[in-house]
Amino acid sequence: MLIGAQTWEFRSKPAIVGAATVVGPEEGGGPLGGTFDFVYDNLEIDEKTWEKAERKLLEHASALALVNAGIAREELSCFVGGDLMNQIISATFAARTIAAPYLGVFGACSTSMEGLALAALITDSGAGRYVMAGTASHNCTAEKQFRYPTEYGSQKPGTAQYTITGSGCAVVSSQGRGPRITHATIGRIQDLGVKDPFNMGAAMAPAAADTLVSHFRDTGRGPEDYDLIVTGDLASVGHAIVKDILAKDGVPMDKTEFNDCGLMIYDRGKQPFVMAGGSGCGCSAVVAYGSILQKLKNKELGRVLVVATGALLSPLSYQQGESIPCIAHAVALEKEESES
Amino acid sequence: MLIGAQTWEFRSKPAIVGAATVVGPEEGGGPLGGTFDFVYDNLEIDEKTWEKAERKLLEHASALALVNAGIAREELSCFVGGDLMNQIISATFAARTIAAPYLGVFGACSTSMEGLALAALITDSGAGRYVMAGTASHNCTAEKQFRYPTEYGSQKPGTAQYTITGSGCAVVSSQGRGPRITHATIGRIQDLGVKDPFNMGAAMAPAAADTLVSHFRDTGRGPEDYDLIVTGDLASVGHAIVKDILAKDGVPMDKTEFNDCGLMIYDRGKQPFVMAGGSGCGCSAVVAYGSILQKLKNKELGRVLVVATGALLSPLSYQQGESIPCIAHAVALEKEESES
Repeated sequence: MLIGAQTWEFRSKPAIVGAATVVGPEEGGGPLGGTFDFVYDNLEIDEKTWEKAERKLLEHASALALVNAGIAREELSCFVGGDLMNQIISATFAARTIAAPYLGVFGACSTSMEGLALAALITDSGAGRYVMAGTASHNCTAEKQFRYPTEYGSQKPGTAQYTITGSGCAVVSSQGRGPRITHATIGRIQDLGVKDPFNMGAAMAPAAADTLVSHFRDTGRGPEDYDLIVTGDLASVGHAIVKDILAKDGVPMDKTEFNDCGLMIYDRGKQPFVMAGGSGCGCSAVVAYGSILQKLKNKELGRVLVVATGALLSPLSYQQGESIPCIAHAVALEKEESES
Repeated sequence: MLIGAQTWEFRSKPAIVGAATVVGPEEGGGPLGGTFDFVYDNLEIDEKTWEKAERKLLEHASALALVNAGIAREELSCFVGGDLMNQIISATFAARTIAAPYLGVFGACSTSMEGLALAALITDSGAGRYVMAGTASHNCTAEKQFRYPTEYGSQKPGTAQYTITGSGCAVVSSQGRGPRITHATIGRIQDLGVKDPFNMGAAMAPAAADTLVSHFRDTGRGPEDYDLIVTGDLASVGHAIVKDILAKDGVPMDKTEFNDCGLMIYDRGKQPFVMAGGSGCGCSAVVAYGSILQKLKNKELGRVLVVATGALLSPLSYQQGESIPCIAHAVALEKEESES
């Protein structure tokens, strides 16, 4: 049910009954490498095109998520998927393989939490028994589509981010065991006029701040009510900005651990090619469904807020001189035996 | 709540409390011309680029839908939007103007009913008071992106369809008056291997048939329970095929009026440039939220099933030799004072 202006509270607190993450070699070599279900040793993911590689990541993660949830794909009431590709072809072709009723969504890198919020709503409202949310990104499909084919070897400024190669899927159900989904705050577009696609962290930071402030307002919670709050993929530039904005808004984030999936997934010292940090649809998905979910399961974390951020530009909108509209969707997760 | 394998039944039967349609000159000159809220007299929609034109259609229709619903945009709990553009920029930029919490969706030409189904679910489950679903397409943005810029004057086969220029938006609420949304059947991907983007009707027909058969199975209804069943945009080739498939499946469609939005929107005799008929995200939206909604309001129709079809290809997937995955989502509508 709606609480406040833009937050959904889920009565049944749907559980993530199974999830899986599959990544490429660079993510596997990063600090969270040990938390992923499968690490490919080649960026081609054993495929002939980058697009087929991205699709394979999603097909692989979705198959593993079903195994981890202990259900057959015929038991899925719905697959909610999306990705960064034009016409979200990775999700669509994966949905062909998954063969469940399919809802395609697009929120750029916020797709992970948009999908998880909808999956929770569908199962919470009784419109689905098991609903899977999933997304994927691949460094080379994103570079090719949004910037330049990697073969060009073009240079980038230090504010640029590195699209992660990976896919994360989660199976949600109102019945069953696992970390719980308690709330989702649906974001509104924020656009402060940033036009530089090599500085998406700065473009997205106001959206993350707006959704965080809205979440706290709607739920009556504050940063101190969470053991961990992570933004999706603001990376070093955007994450510093969102902290500044929140401090000015009177929401000091020093009372909790406040991090960013794009900063957590790589070691920028040892992996300097990631520039400001990670990004992409898969970024918040593989961090949330990997490391964070594991810490919720083993009770290392009690309550986590994942604020996935999305820069909703297209190469064409950029070329026509438009600014970058951004959005952020937040999902609140709890360890299983929480009192509240 | 879920009934059968893939149908949502809405307990509150959310009402479409207001809707609006805005189209271009060719749609305004077609047989449904008098049913639209606004007809532009120029294909440029008074804008400098085709993409800005498409966005303007959606901004215009969404503003009119709010007026027709009698609500301010601040009262919207959510806007569920999508379109055919890469990264659904028309919906996103319109969402910036609408300024409500925003969920981006993509189902190609099935986006209209995917959005309406989600809007109904959100309000039926109490997660939103007023939720708007909307989509748009423009002939020249689609031609430019999926085929060739219209300036090339390239020839097409007779199976090709003509993307309509227009936008339709509907405001849904569990409180309030208007035609009711009773069910939504979420489609599964169907892909029989058609690879020809100039014959999307043939590619999409099996998806329409699968969703229709699933809807009848899940609800226990048959074609005779509807006064009108319309497919989204199969046009002449695809609509003939879906009738064949259904006849072979033992679902004869001669017990009800069975039509197609892509056939209804143009007069193919007087408008031969539309080839097999209309298509595009806006096609089923402007027919459903225009003519059909008006006939439900004045009780000319009692119960209607809109089966919006989508061809989920991208130019890149086509160029890589992939077939065209297709989907169809069905939404059942009723006049206000229905007993059932």
